[in-house]
Amino acid sequence: MSQRMGMLLVVSGPSGSGKTTLCRRLANEGEARYSISCTTRPARPGEVNGRDYYFLTRGEFEAKRDAGDFLESAEVHGNLYGTLSSEVTGHLCLGSDVVMDLDVQGAAKVRACGDAKVRQSVVDIFVMPPSDEELLARLSGRGTDTVAVIELRMRNALDEMSHWREYTYRLLSSTQEEDYLRFKALVIAERMRVSRLTGV
Amino acid sequence: MSQRMGMLLVVSGPSGSGKTTLCRRLANEGEARYSISCTTRPARPGEVNGRDYYFLTRGEFEAKRDAGDFLESAEVHGNLYGTLSSEVTGHLCLGSDVVMDLDVQGAAKVRACGDAKVRQSVVDIFVMPPSDEELLARLSGRGTDTVAVIELRMRNALDEMSHWREYTYRLLSSTQEEDYLRFKALVIAERMRVSRLTGV
Repeated sequence: MSQRMGMLLVVSGPSGSGKTTLCRRLANEGEARYSISCTTRPARPGEVNGRDYYFLTRGEFEAKRDAGDFLESAEVHGNLYGTLSSEVTGHLCLGSDVVMDLDVQGAAKVRACGDAKVRQSVVDIFVMPPSDEELLARLSGRGTDTVAVIELRMRNALDEMSHWREYTYRLLSSTQEEDYLRFKALVIAERMRVSRLTGV
Repeated sequence: MSQRMGMLLVVSGPSGSGKTTLCRRLANEGEARYSISCTTRPARPGEVNGRDYYFLTRGEFEAKRDAGDFLESAEVHGNLYGTLSSEVTGHLCLGSDVVMDLDVQGAAKVRACGDAKVRQSVVDIFVMPPSDEELLARLSGRGTDTVAVIELRMRNALDEMSHWREYTYRLLSSTQEEDYLRFKALVIAERMRVSRLTGV
């Protein structure tokens, strides 16, 4: 039988949608390789370089960007974020699946990137919170944040959510277990796609 | 949220691939409506009219065909087979999923049928036996058939199998349980497809 080309799972959704948990779990179960992003923002307590992000100085980031090392990159709130091609391309060609969580801006750039093999391998999913009420509850977190901070988060989340129609799949979040089952179903189904089997 | 358009699962595969078992089980679990075909061939022992097929006389079949009642129909080995539009269209519009097993000829006709709503709702899957050896074992059945009969079955099966690239998905059969899990995964995934949610 023909060698399968890997798929690039691009998962978006607002904070509080649970998208990162889905991606990490898929990788932890050995079903896909997690693509680690680069960022110039400082590491938060508990974050580990090379696990959560590659933490780079602005100078290091710009040097890589100028060398064409990024599949996509963008500036968000004064910090640079990007995905190295080396995190993705080789693995896909070897038939490994790669999973990444990206905001809608990053996802759009990957869909339009210059590498046709990467573009064709994209399977994009938008994870949607079950309702605005539930989203607000999730974003309100531990109750230690100000109303202004929560309102900003909510505005950003609603802005992200307005883009769901740009995706191939929409996963309407319910429980963590149910979400993962459906996410996994999507991966299983996409592995049966003939265009990926034949390289058409 | 928007009303979902149902999907039309078109399942093909040679005898011995287990396609009918997959379709029937999906329907039995209430996940989809099984579309019952019409045929002019005589009922075999144990077959029930309105469950396995609608058994029609050639005159009845031709009258329905002339009235444009069929989504697709064909003559195979001197018998007429066909799918009534009434088994499919209304259910899809109401958001119900419909499942049917069809040979490659029937599947091609459904993909090319005159009803755009039906065409857009098609999700086609080819169920492939794990190997030619396993297929031969399955087709040899109870050991009561002549070599000539088994050879004919095998030739027909290999001919069907040569068409797998015309399908969107290929399910490579292993165990009955595993096959159903993957078939079900495909249904779960396709229900998340944005184009079906928005009617785009």
